[in-house]
Amino acid sequence: MKLATLKNGKRDGQLVVVSRDLRLCQAVPAIAATLQAALDDWDHAAPQLERVYAALNAGEAAGAQPFDEAACHSPLPRAYQWADGSAYINHVELVRKARNAEVPASFYTDPLMYQGGSDSFVGPRDPIYALSEEWGIDLEAEVAVVTGDVPMGAAPEVAARAIRLVMLVNDVSLRNLIPNELAKGFGFFQSKPASAFSPVAVTPDELGADWQDDKLRLPLNVDLNGKPFGRPNAGEDMTFSFAQLVAHAARTRELGAGTIIGSGTVSNKQGSLHGSSVENGGVGYCCLAEVRMYETIEGGAPKTPFLKFGDSVRIAMRDAAGNSIFGTIDQVVRHYGEKGQA
Amino acid sequence: MKLATLKNGKRDGQLVVVSRDLRLCQAVPAIAATLQAALDDWDHAAPQLERVYAALNAGEAAGAQPFDEAACHSPLPRAYQWADGSAYINHVELVRKARNAEVPASFYTDPLMYQGGSDSFVGPRDPIYALSEEWGIDLEAEVAVVTGDVPMGAAPEVAARAIRLVMLVNDVSLRNLIPNELAKGFGFFQSKPASAFSPVAVTPDELGADWQDDKLRLPLNVDLNGKPFGRPNAGEDMTFSFAQLVAHAARTRELGAGTIIGSGTVSNKQGSLHGSSVENGGVGYCCLAEVRMYETIEGGAPKTPFLKFGDSVRIAMRDAAGNSIFGTIDQVVRHYGEKGQA
Repeated sequence: MKLATLKNGKRDGQLVVVSRDLRLCQAVPAIAATLQAALDDWDHAAPQLERVYAALNAGEAAGAQPFDEAACHSPLPRAYQWADGSAYINHVELVRKARNAEVPASFYTDPLMYQGGSDSFVGPRDPIYALSEEWGIDLEAEVAVVTGDVPMGAAPEVAARAIRLVMLVNDVSLRNLIPNELAKGFGFFQSKPASAFSPVAVTPDELGADWQDDKLRLPLNVDLNGKPFGRPNAGEDMTFSFAQLVAHAARTRELGAGTIIGSGTVSNKQGSLHGSSVENGGVGYCCLAEVRMYETIEGGAPKTPFLKFGDSVRIAMRDAAGNSIFGTIDQVVRHYGEKGQA
Repeated sequence: MKLATLKNGKRDGQLVVVSRDLRLCQAVPAIAATLQAALDDWDHAAPQLERVYAALNAGEAAGAQPFDEAACHSPLPRAYQWADGSAYINHVELVRKARNAEVPASFYTDPLMYQGGSDSFVGPRDPIYALSEEWGIDLEAEVAVVTGDVPMGAAPEVAARAIRLVMLVNDVSLRNLIPNELAKGFGFFQSKPASAFSPVAVTPDELGADWQDDKLRLPLNVDLNGKPFGRPNAGEDMTFSFAQLVAHAARTRELGAGTIIGSGTVSNKQGSLHGSSVENGGVGYCCLAEVRMYETIEGGAPKTPFLKFGDSVRIAMRDAAGNSIFGTIDQVVRHYGEKGQA
């Protein structure tokens, strides 16, 4: 089934069930007012939500309303946990290669993961706010899962069964702040502002054969200022599955229901800068840092700038029939001073 | 005023107002069912909660019940953000000195802060669960604040006004996992399991003159297996105030109501190992790592072991009259396999 959260002036918004074709939705206050409430009591809520979903798809839902992606907040407008992996090692290999460093062997068996801020996500159509372009604003197009409760030390098989929902995410990074933050050794902190998630979150069964071995085997569509920028397949070159990432997160602690675990920037192995961009027949990139690394490896220095105020980012995914699965993340970079002045 | 959360079988527990002397409490479902709900609507809820607090202290609260610290969860059993600073640079200086490294000059002006897991805190009397003693289980006794909404780029003066509550925390660390995690560059992730907070959270005004310049100027009492282990003053040698720490967290992103910001391990400057322990007339330590660093500096290697299953940790703070302000964190280290078998 498909779920979304409509903005309603409250911090957690209103949970709605969305039809498979993203045309209709229905509020379900009698089942759960918010997505977190549904996740807190999933075994009880999910079968009821599934019945509403079936009725919506059959055109038999009495309370159906038109679904408007632009009215959505992120499915979880705020969450109790957002931990982001770095499962596409190609991305890490490029970072290292750009500075002539080796990738440690352990990186292929022990996932990289950082704890992110989850107190105030932005909506999929909200601006990316920053106080300065000098921060080096970059997109990162990723896939993420939402879990139920996971016990400490859960094996990947146990973790796999705790995956409740799948969604897309733009994990914005402030590239020029990262070196100083990482040098301090405590993680990305100031270099990771608020993320935005796709309008719709879907259960893994909804993805059919495209959800295989706990990976989502479809191309991720990333457009930059209206032009194709990335089309990599999220199921290729993913060194760690979502089951492995969730198990990694739970190694020394329980995970609470509503925990979001990200894949890290989707990245497919490509031979070189020439031929890697969509324009040149490649699958392109899911972040500007990656094209800048290719440029550095081939030309000694990056050429492509980071995002400027006014730049736009679109992230979506289509099934084999060409239908949007999660709706579209569509954000424009704005100065934070403009917030509330619209 | 003083607030606490009683365990009631639900994930967020039940908010109660607690009398100043910690003897009485009253549930306030008509004002706010949970502490997060009160924080979400603080300007509306706080004056009503204050009236209940005044009635409790005057012995005039109709619904007053005995307050039992052992029935408490952490004030926020789960939170949307937990970010922990490292404001007592003495602790960092010792770490570096133990490995013959310099403290970078920037550390005195740019706070260290990491993003912690906030999805499932444990209660103040709950066990510290781990799967192995080999993880190097350590306590970290700290002070923490809970904020309201904070705008991006807030100055320290603005951040100060957003501090809603003060509490104590045991930020458990898995010392033997830290080197590998920090070497990966993405922060502490697996080396920071669930934290526990004091039974009671208090508004800054409740602390009177002991809350000065956004620091809490009282000794923190830490006992290990029933013996005094630390008595450092939390207001001394704190390089960054809570206003500065909150502003640091908000530099590139908004903070949502209910954000918890920690001080880092409280640590006072002391001359040497001899004379620094409580037994030898010093103020002692708030974590085992610190005494091990003194031992390393003076003797070439640590002698004091990390926590073993069965070890106990108590953390509390008393006002000038000797009264407990926050109640007591009192935890025993247990194997996670014992959970649910009590």
